[in-house]
Amino acid sequence: MKLVRYGKAGEERPGLIDADGALRDLSDEVPDIDGRILGPDALARIAGLDHTALPLVAGTPRVGPCVGSVGKLIGIGLNYSDHAAESGMDVPSEPIVFLKATTAICGPDDDVELPQGAAKVDWEVELAFVIGTRAKNVTQADALSHVAGYLIVNDVSERSWQAERQGQWTKGKSHDTFAPMGPWLVTADEVANPHDLGMRLDVDDVRRQDGSTRTLIFGIAHLVSYLSTFMTLEPGDVVTTGTPPGVGLGMQPQVFLQEGQMMRLEIDGLGVQQQRCVRKAVS
Amino acid sequence: MKLVRYGKAGEERPGLIDADGALRDLSDEVPDIDGRILGPDALARIAGLDHTALPLVAGTPRVGPCVGSVGKLIGIGLNYSDHAAESGMDVPSEPIVFLKATTAICGPDDDVELPQGAAKVDWEVELAFVIGTRAKNVTQADALSHVAGYLIVNDVSERSWQAERQGQWTKGKSHDTFAPMGPWLVTADEVANPHDLGMRLDVDDVRRQDGSTRTLIFGIAHLVSYLSTFMTLEPGDVVTTGTPPGVGLGMQPQVFLQEGQMMRLEIDGLGVQQQRCVRKAVS
Repeated sequence: MKLVRYGKAGEERPGLIDADGALRDLSDEVPDIDGRILGPDALARIAGLDHTALPLVAGTPRVGPCVGSVGKLIGIGLNYSDHAAESGMDVPSEPIVFLKATTAICGPDDDVELPQGAAKVDWEVELAFVIGTRAKNVTQADALSHVAGYLIVNDVSERSWQAERQGQWTKGKSHDTFAPMGPWLVTADEVANPHDLGMRLDVDDVRRQDGSTRTLIFGIAHLVSYLSTFMTLEPGDVVTTGTPPGVGLGMQPQVFLQEGQMMRLEIDGLGVQQQRCVRKAVS
Repeated sequence: MKLVRYGKAGEERPGLIDADGALRDLSDEVPDIDGRILGPDALARIAGLDHTALPLVAGTPRVGPCVGSVGKLIGIGLNYSDHAAESGMDVPSEPIVFLKATTAICGPDDDVELPQGAAKVDWEVELAFVIGTRAKNVTQADALSHVAGYLIVNDVSERSWQAERQGQWTKGKSHDTFAPMGPWLVTADEVANPHDLGMRLDVDDVRRQDGSTRTLIFGIAHLVSYLSTFMTLEPGDVVTTGTPPGVGLGMQPQVFLQEGQMMRLEIDGLGVQQQRCVRKAVS
């Protein structure tokens, strides 16, 4: 299934994309697309509904972030060997983990804010997954059973805040609108192999990233198991797994986002995001 | 006012400590002690109630974390000059910011889990504050108006996970039970000067930390204003402001927490916490 949230920011309603690509409302069936309905039983119940009987949504409403009430937004750093190289960093021997503020989450096509004083805002197309059932100290063999589905995250990053302002990447990863999410949460049963998905990012129609999750260093099961030893993963937590080569930080000379530019992100089977970069404070 | 949450983990009810030190129930007045009721109007309404008419709570129920539904738990690193020195780090030129997973939050007297494979679990008594109204790009002059109140946080930290496992402190700061919080949320009007509070931490009756918020490098208004440029602070977000000298990491030889040990934390006017260290997985 492709689950979505649509409507005004903060007032999103749950929905799904049916077999014909139409948006249908799920408000009578579930309170939201969030941790409460991401376990296997709840997802099976939604899958078992007659989707053609759900109300069609008229018009083209805004698409919101495809997961609501995210408790933790966990990022993985330098998880593609070529990206580590372009960033001038060693390939990590174990996953690098950071947290993004959940207030950074926005819809897949919302404006991305270039904050006051920010000169080095960069893009990162990433495969993310969402947790469906609680995971604490789980093995790699059990790990994938805790994953409800997959989505695109743009792990927007301010590079000087991330690396030149007294350490800890969180500072450059957390601004409002630095985590566009969606358009769809694609349930795990519809993603045949999350480790073989092409992924692309364009800025103003120039291809900047063109990679594949085939070159992930630490795969999904490894990440779930690893993270679950350091913190308990709860339903609705989102993990964004790192970016392939092609970020602005790695170019010579470096290139960063400018007001008015458009980003377009795509991952095979997970849909398309696009965001305009704006200087005005968002929300 | 001293606001509290009491009852079983995950089922806490809101309450307050009255002028005689008795626990009274607020369930008929507010849904919880969380971001929804931390703005000035809501706090003024609670203050204006006849507290002697609120139901007395019988017995001695468990005390939960004094803020519910925390959206972000933000930590400040090396914010006492003597603690930076004992950690072998330079005094920072601007605040060091990290995020703790909100799943680390527990009650002030709950057991603290020494996780599987963790050999360097350390203590940190800290003054924390909770946000009452949304703050984005606020000035230092306006900053304190966004603070609803103060509380104790034990910023429990696994030092090898924090520093020896591929960077980013989050990994060592986020385990379940690594953020005991409370016992009380003391509203800002009752804390005459948050920059002049004695703070103490004992392990098995041995005094380990004995400091004062007088030696904070970056004070509360500075932190609110600074953080609000990097991420929007929402009502219910908690910021824990760093620890004074005396952590186990800084001792020679280093000392870390052992199974069965008791921690006792106190900050003037904010109450007392105590936690037993256990090896068994908590919750």
